[in-house]
Amino acid sequence: MTIKLIGHPGSGPTLRVSMTLKELGLPYEFEVPADRQAIKTDDFLDNKHPFGKIPVLIDGDFTINESRAICRYLASKYQGKHNATILIPTDVHKAGLASQCISYESFYYDPAITKIVHQEIYAKKLISQCISYESFYSDPPLSKLVQQEISAKKKFNKDPDQEVIKQAREELAKVLDVYEKILEGKEYLNGEFSLADLFHTPSTHYIYSMEAHSKLWDSRPNVKNWWNRLRNRDAIKKVLDEIKS
Amino acid sequence: MTIKLIGHPGSGPTLRVSMTLKELGLPYEFEVPADRQAIKTDDFLDNKHPFGKIPVLIDGDFTINESRAICRYLASKYQGKHNATILIPTDVHKAGLASQCISYESFYYDPAITKIVHQEIYAKKLISQCISYESFYSDPPLSKLVQQEISAKKKFNKDPDQEVIKQAREELAKVLDVYEKILEGKEYLNGEFSLADLFHTPSTHYIYSMEAHSKLWDSRPNVKNWWNRLRNRDAIKKVLDEIKS
Repeated sequence: MTIKLIGHPGSGPTLRVSMTLKELGLPYEFEVPADRQAIKTDDFLDNKHPFGKIPVLIDGDFTINESRAICRYLASKYQGKHNATILIPTDVHKAGLASQCISYESFYYDPAITKIVHQEIYAKKLISQCISYESFYSDPPLSKLVQQEISAKKKFNKDPDQEVIKQAREELAKVLDVYEKILEGKEYLNGEFSLADLFHTPSTHYIYSMEAHSKLWDSRPNVKNWWNRLRNRDAIKKVLDEIKS
Repeated sequence: MTIKLIGHPGSGPTLRVSMTLKELGLPYEFEVPADRQAIKTDDFLDNKHPFGKIPVLIDGDFTINESRAICRYLASKYQGKHNATILIPTDVHKAGLASQCISYESFYYDPAITKIVHQEIYAKKLISQCISYESFYSDPPLSKLVQQEISAKKKFNKDPDQEVIKQAREELAKVLDVYEKILEGKEYLNGEFSLADLFHTPSTHYIYSMEAHSKLWDSRPNVKNWWNRLRNRDAIKKVLDEIKS
């Protein structure tokens, strides 16, 4: 039975699922929607994602959306079947503590990073992003792309708000101080690698690639080692190398 | 083995855990921190919650925090043991779809409601809230409470921002339109009741108690029936009645 992932290589939530598939040793097809409108059609809303979002996973006749839910599903169904990697501990207490760190990621870590990335990437680099989308999508309906570009530019094409970045960095620094403590004497957040660590990878990848912000990780020895350990895992490295090429 | 829940009856995340405990038929002790500073002590940060938050659950010698993680843990460990209620389906596909709706709650439904509640409650009713906290906490260190009140007033004691409320209502209306479709022909979001439905209850309870906003639910028949079904479940009713009294 073929697994199909509908997503975009430039989307963090899509990467989260790609990494989970690779960690579990699962082969999959990757499908990129033709353009941004393709995920807002009645068919997509009715059968793929009612909020018109990516990623969506199709596993035989089963469809599921929302990256964190997809990854939980994949781990529950397939872990230990194609390789020895365990992403959700089988022990109920260890699984609980993995969920706890998933919550830290969803509600403290990711929101702080998103605020910065939003300013740095979306505000600053929108034009090149539009060009990249244009060249990426095959046979784009140009008028729609032009419309998108104009409306997106109006919304985002401005200098990053340094005050927003400053506040989000302070918020993030506090989160990373907590992580530095949590990671003391541990390889991963819960000791053993799990979905909790993996979920942090896409957003960290984006922000760490900006020199001004990578120091937030590198100045904290445990956090630095954790991130190096994470991004150098075979499965994660493969996904990150694929989006570079 | 005693289960202890550390939280506050006025906290939505605490209610989420109380409701899960009641649904599973688990007896528990309820502990309210002496004041807001009590959850910021080194002891609390080191042993209960590294971000200084409630709720925290202590189950024998096992401690876990973050409401959604606590509820998942409780369901995984105890469901079916004290009564017949199942909160996480045992079928891997059904469990995946419950996680999917938990994601809708965490990232679409709850954030929209929080924006409104924040304006309506925290902005408007802060003084009465402070008085309620003061009378609630036993033997409060008055100087700290006064300090809190002053700093909180500075931050929040202003009229609700009607523009923020308007935008959040539009966002919420779109979410509820999707829910209206999802709930067509179903009693609960995934057909059978699960944690996905339960997680929606605290925030819905708060906003639904404001007449100006309850119409958002009542004007959508499936959403209205779902909410009435939810809030009239024995376990949930008990918890909501307890906080009223």
